[in-house]
Amino acid sequence: MTDMAEVRRRPGRPGRRPGAADTRGEILTAARRVFAEKGFDKATIRGIARAAGVDPALVHHYFETKDGVFVAAMRLPVDPVAAIPLIVSGPREEIGERLVRFILTMTGEPAARERILALLRTAMVNEQGVTMLREFFASAVLGRVGAELGVPPIRMQAAFSQMLGVVMARYIMRLEPLGSADTEELVGLLAPTIQRYLTG
Amino acid sequence: MTDMAEVRRRPGRPGRRPGAADTRGEILTAARRVFAEKGFDKATIRGIARAAGVDPALVHHYFETKDGVFVAAMRLPVDPVAAIPLIVSGPREEIGERLVRFILTMTGEPAARERILALLRTAMVNEQGVTMLREFFASAVLGRVGAELGVPPIRMQAAFSQMLGVVMARYIMRLEPLGSADTEELVGLLAPTIQRYLTG
Repeated sequence: MTDMAEVRRRPGRPGRRPGAADTRGEILTAARRVFAEKGFDKATIRGIARAAGVDPALVHHYFETKDGVFVAAMRLPVDPVAAIPLIVSGPREEIGERLVRFILTMTGEPAARERILALLRTAMVNEQGVTMLREFFASAVLGRVGAELGVPPIRMQAAFSQMLGVVMARYIMRLEPLGSADTEELVGLLAPTIQRYLTG
Repeated sequence: MTDMAEVRRRPGRPGRRPGAADTRGEILTAARRVFAEKGFDKATIRGIARAAGVDPALVHHYFETKDGVFVAAMRLPVDPVAAIPLIVSGPREEIGERLVRFILTMTGEPAARERILALLRTAMVNEQGVTMLREFFASAVLGRVGAELGVPPIRMQAAFSQMLGVVMARYIMRLEPLGSADTEELVGLLAPTIQRYLTG
């Protein structure tokens, strides 16, 4: 079972510049604007710092990487990039099960789920929202996992589409019995699908 | 290959009552209100007729069944209920492939796809919209196919979730290369998944 605590969103370092009441918050506000305008791929730490009127070193100080800024700016409940090592390590023939358990555990927590559903809803109806999410998932998450595992992008995306569809069918459409099925039943149903996409 | 022309939305019979300029349109307006208020399951032809101020026989005349009213009221590009016999007939070991081809062919047509995406977007952000769609798909579509094939509801819903996720990943998130992959590649990738849910 994946330990969700290990991949929780890094809150950023607590240190504040003297006199800067909410520099971190100002960086995040600027980052949301920059990500919306440029998408994830074209946004840079330097550009976000410029938009916030701070030194790029300060953005690195608070968030370390562009991924880190994005995760905090979008208030993602977990950092998918930090979760990658937990998913890809361990027996290769159980990766489908690890991935399904990770997604089900994360979306099983109401606060995390609500945040994810809010992002999906925004992306569904907002062109900028969908561009940001697409680029973040394609580059920072699926691209990296695929590269680690040697899995072609289309197979990573097929696996992603299955898990996206399950989350939507359970928590947005609320189909029953899928919506209230327990983790073990869903792992039995879905893990072989994900396993085949990733290693089949 | 499924012939999409056979499952196109029945336009309703063209006949008009003398003096009733757009009775059919008035029934559909009333039906949208009734489906939104009551959901698909609790709505009745009688209730829709009452809301439209017409005789129930007239609703039957134009749309035959409650499914038919729903398909016309929601402007679904094809009637999923009419498509069921095409999907379930033929060799059982190829049902995954038939179902994947049907969904890909339908969503490959821009006008049909736009209508489906519009419905999904509405459902994502609108509680009444999601209730209508859930009940229609669960009862009228997935429930009937499952009953025909002897497949438990949760397995039907897992198959639905894979196809929902693919349509969203391709046409709303526009992930590449999934978004522009051709039908044969997608059938090779997805048909075994659907086949396993339905007969595995």
